[in-house]
Amino acid sequence: MSPHFAIPRVGTGVDVHAFTAPGSGRPLWVAGLKWADDGGLDGHSDADVVAHASCDALLSAAGIGDLGTIFGTGDPRWSGASGATLLRHCAELVRANGFEIGNVSVQLIANRPKFAPRRHEAQAQLTAAAGADVTVIATTTDGLGLTGRAEGAAAIATAIVYRSADAPTHSG
Amino acid sequence: MSPHFAIPRVGTGVDVHAFTAPGSGRPLWVAGLKWADDGGLDGHSDADVVAHASCDALLSAAGIGDLGTIFGTGDPRWSGASGATLLRHCAELVRANGFEIGNVSVQLIANRPKFAPRRHEAQAQLTAAAGADVTVIATTTDGLGLTGRAEGAAAIATAIVYRSADAPTHSG
Amino acid sequence: MSPHFAIPRVGTGVDVHAFTAPGSGRPLWVAGLKWADDGGLDGHSDADVVAHASCDALLSAAGIGDLGTIFGTGDPRWSGASGATLLRHCAELVRANGFEIGNVSVQLIANRPKFAPRRHEAQAQLTAAAGADVTVIATTTDGLGLTGRAEGAAAIATAIVYRSADAPTHSG
Repeated sequence: MSPHFAIPRVGTGVDVHAFTAPGSGRPLWVAGLKWADDGGLDGHSDADVVAHASCDALLSAAGIGDLGTIFGTGDPRWSGASGATLLRHCAELVRANGFEIGNVSVQLIANRPKFAPRRHEAQAQLTAAAGADVTVIATTTDGLGLTGRAEGAAAIATAIVYRSADAPTHSG
Repeated sequence: MSPHFAIPRVGTGVDVHAFTAPGSGRPLWVAGLKWADDGGLDGHSDADVVAHASCDALLSAAGIGDLGTIFGTGDPRWSGASGATLLRHCAELVRANGFEIGNVSVQLIANRPKFAPRRHEAQAQLTAAAGADVTVIATTTDGLGLTGRAEGAAAIATAIVYRSADAPTHSG
Repeated sequence: MSPHFAIPRVGTGVDVHAFTAPGSGRPLWVAGLKWADDGGLDGHSDADVVAHASCDALLSAAGIGDLGTIFGTGDPRWSGASGATLLRHCAELVRANGFEIGNVSVQLIANRPKFAPRRHEAQAQLTAAAGADVTVIATTTDGLGLTGRAEGAAAIATAIVYRSADAPTHSG
């Protein structure tokens, strides 16, 4: 019943973190980059919503849990780890479970940082971390909702993976 | 012009339901499971946002409508139907329209229930209903928005399907 | 290392616009259609959230930027362009960059317009614009959040594309 060609698997993930107040001294990390904005996103980790949503999309596509189950265990290895480091580890877990990553698409939904000028830099950073193409886009919500009121930043990601074992079966 | 290999189709769906007040006596159904939490989600059906978002992602991937058009007709067969029952019927509709289901990835976005301990049980329940792999992950929104204020629960799903007719073309 | 079969790429995009007040005289454009509702969505363009989310999903799947980078340049060609016109142009850009479009799935999240009766018409309009199948579904958020309070409308889209060059490799 299962097809003789490779059917890839898809995954999706959303992440939200609250902004700290301007003057908090908390740095802003988004999409693997540090931004000059004061009043960064709050959280135990660096609160990089773009990297975190990408992690969850990959983990879900591979069916191996989520950020909370993988990193929420108090394991000291991940204490203070950057979003890019978490993404690198998630990509390694996906591969260790027998999948290759097709691509990840993730959108930042936030009033800040002003994302477009550093889009290529962000994509290069996250693509290096994931070992697969990560494209990052950005939008705002017209002043509405938690992101429009600048209470926080959100990100939404989708990913596609396929079984490593499918590759040789279909080659040449 | 159409390719000689199978191009799968993707779909996405979001669902939101409001929590009833604690003490409402309304049970909480999420991801095909009944939870001990008091003050369940409100709605005509069991308000299982995870199952409903999965239904919409599948129906949209197959291009055959949505929950409202399929179940919103007052048809007494679906009155009070569980989320798992709706998901089973949607998967049957998808197949009856000539598609096989690759997988479904769905994320619960809510303060409660505490999802992780029953993740595998939820996945088994929804995978049985869909007849295809359903992976479920969970997150919260850092106290922000309708989910962070615990006004309700949301879920977001993505699904991948492919035409049944593509399978034999590519076998052997 | 790259597989000998075609691995498609996925993309996702969200868009939100605020409703103008009833009596504003602003027309409501959603999913490529003009609706009789008074108090349309606000924005520099026609604020068609369904078309815009579809654009972003396609652009992100192809890794060629987003609505802001493509149309936010003050280029007078796009001043006042309809959502369907933007979608047509995005689909052309995707193809010009070496990809074919599998399908687009997009969900309207809003209290209005009453979408179901014109779903097929909307799908035909956007499918013609994209030159590929666009399926549109709709939901509400149970009175919660920016869409539930009718402050605005949101849309979420996912898209799948594949490299044009993959097609002949796998034919016959």
